[in-house]
Amino acid sequence: MADLRSDDLVLIACSGGPDSLALASVAAFFARRGTVRVGAVVVDHGLQQGSADIAKRTAAILQSLGLSPVEVRAVQVFEGQGPEAAARTARYAALEAAADQHGAAMVMLGHTLDDQAEQVLLGLARGSGTRSLAGMPARRQGSSGVQYARPFLSLRRAETVEICQLEELRPWLDPTNQDPQFARSRARYRVLPVMEAELGPGIAESLARSARILSQDADYLDELAQRAYRDLVEFSPNRDELLLAEEALRQLAPAIRQRVLALAVTEMAGSQPSFERLLAAEALLNRRGSAGPVQLSGGVSVYRLSRAVLAQDSKQPAKYGKLVVRRDS
Amino acid sequence: MADLRSDDLVLIACSGGPDSLALASVAAFFARRGTVRVGAVVVDHGLQQGSADIAKRTAAILQSLGLSPVEVRAVQVFEGQGPEAAARTARYAALEAAADQHGAAMVMLGHTLDDQAEQVLLGLARGSGTRSLAGMPARRQGSSGVQYARPFLSLRRAETVEICQLEELRPWLDPTNQDPQFARSRARYRVLPVMEAELGPGIAESLARSARILSQDADYLDELAQRAYRDLVEFSPNRDELLLAEEALRQLAPAIRQRVLALAVTEMAGSQPSFERLLAAEALLNRRGSAGPVQLSGGVSVYRLSRAVLAQDSKQPAKYGKLVVRRDS
Repeated sequence: MADLRSDDLVLIACSGGPDSLALASVAAFFARRGTVRVGAVVVDHGLQQGSADIAKRTAAILQSLGLSPVEVRAVQVFEGQGPEAAARTARYAALEAAADQHGAAMVMLGHTLDDQAEQVLLGLARGSGTRSLAGMPARRQGSSGVQYARPFLSLRRAETVEICQLEELRPWLDPTNQDPQFARSRARYRVLPVMEAELGPGIAESLARSARILSQDADYLDELAQRAYRDLVEFSPNRDELLLAEEALRQLAPAIRQRVLALAVTEMAGSQPSFERLLAAEALLNRRGSAGPVQLSGGVSVYRLSRAVLAQDSKQPAKYGKLVVRRDS
Repeated sequence: MADLRSDDLVLIACSGGPDSLALASVAAFFARRGTVRVGAVVVDHGLQQGSADIAKRTAAILQSLGLSPVEVRAVQVFEGQGPEAAARTARYAALEAAADQHGAAMVMLGHTLDDQAEQVLLGLARGSGTRSLAGMPARRQGSSGVQYARPFLSLRRAETVEICQLEELRPWLDPTNQDPQFARSRARYRVLPVMEAELGPGIAESLARSARILSQDADYLDELAQRAYRDLVEFSPNRDELLLAEEALRQLAPAIRQRVLALAVTEMAGSQPSFERLLAAEALLNRRGSAGPVQLSGGVSVYRLSRAVLAQDSKQPAKYGKLVVRRDS
């Protein structure tokens, strides 16, 4: 809490589970010492019977710890995404609204080292690269400008249970955490114990350490790619096309080039391309003459304009071709 | 084989197992077409009863495929490292000696996508960062200058078994591959099937795809770090100390700074520091005045020389301190 002032308000996002309840009780200690003001938000997802009662009971515990304000926010979880993603979207919207309303400087989340290990494992199962293996960041700025912090990322889940016991707090044990229909609970109860037995000890710590190293790498590479992208990109007048000079792309290291292409596609499609489709688009750089289009999701296609075509269009000789990322209307 | 000429010699490293035997038979096809010359090396590790006979039988199959030269090299596996690492050291030394003797342009290894997935999983279990999660490289230059290539990294192990069946080759099935005393066989037979069932389908492909993405990232970051290290490092006259200007270190992104420190420690210690000890050394940059030493393995310590001490030594005002990496004699 080094960068917080005593009149700053921190909101604890509390499910009533052991991790976030332990976090609330530790934060309450700092509130009593006057280090910072601490309140809490309990999000009621309305997905289980009795969820309103659980939220009310959790709020009562948080008030008994001396936190203020303590708020229950009922949200509606929309289908369409998977159930876990939909609940997450609704939860973070509610947290940001609460932070906004109370002028909170920070929202703290109770994720532990075990959550991080599960996150890395789920990222691995998708096979989607450095950023997704980097797990959850210890700090992150939300879309509304609020800071999210995860101060318990190096604590084990069992330690949060112990904190609750010591503080005589009775956490709520969410039965859906054990529901095997969710990938996260299968990672937790079926995969990690096998990995620990066969490749351990210390698998959860190793996964969390990997996340920490990879998040530094991802941060730096993403920053370099953002810079290269801004230097390279040109937009068509009506912004339905984006052009990248191919010679400049070719000179980039593959790690940066693929990120620049991903940024260009994401800008046009509104969502990230798959690695395979990205490689197909990148392969256009090895072609001569006009080539493509390579279709990507989000109604976006990528093709190569040869220098001959460019010269025709601009009435000026072009030395190299360009890669075009186009949003099909 | 695009970069090989017809009179170049490629040596297949062949254990007699399905993957390297399939590789030998595919390479033999190219040899018959005159694309390249193909020979093979069978390394007899002498670790199992009858290993000499197995090697001889494998060599006979390779000769029947038309490969030439075909050589059996018996090696001695020294203890000290773990049994897997010791066997690997002996094997690669034998391969390089054979390549050297026959003037081979390339040594081809039969590792498949499944081997790569296992490699990533074992790297994860160690938790040792991007390079180790990047798995085995598709291309690598050996210490003697020979090129290693793994052309089967995107083939499944089952496909190599099928190739052997189609070609009517009888591969040798190494029983130690199933021996649970080895971490690799536990990863293969006990962990990956559980991951596939619980988090799949496509876990092996996802792990291999992660390796591919991470190897590009690791290559680029290692290259940047090498460059920064060469710019920064100063040696003491007798080379038992190495100095790094701390202000330049501080200005590096954490991903590069930690790699530069790792290079410095590796140069002095002869082996890589652990991530935890590296963080401890890095933390000296947050200190004022002279600080440390932080002990690392390999008889190396790191400490901070304040600018006051530096000014005394050189009789010149120093604006910033330096980090010293010292080999204790």
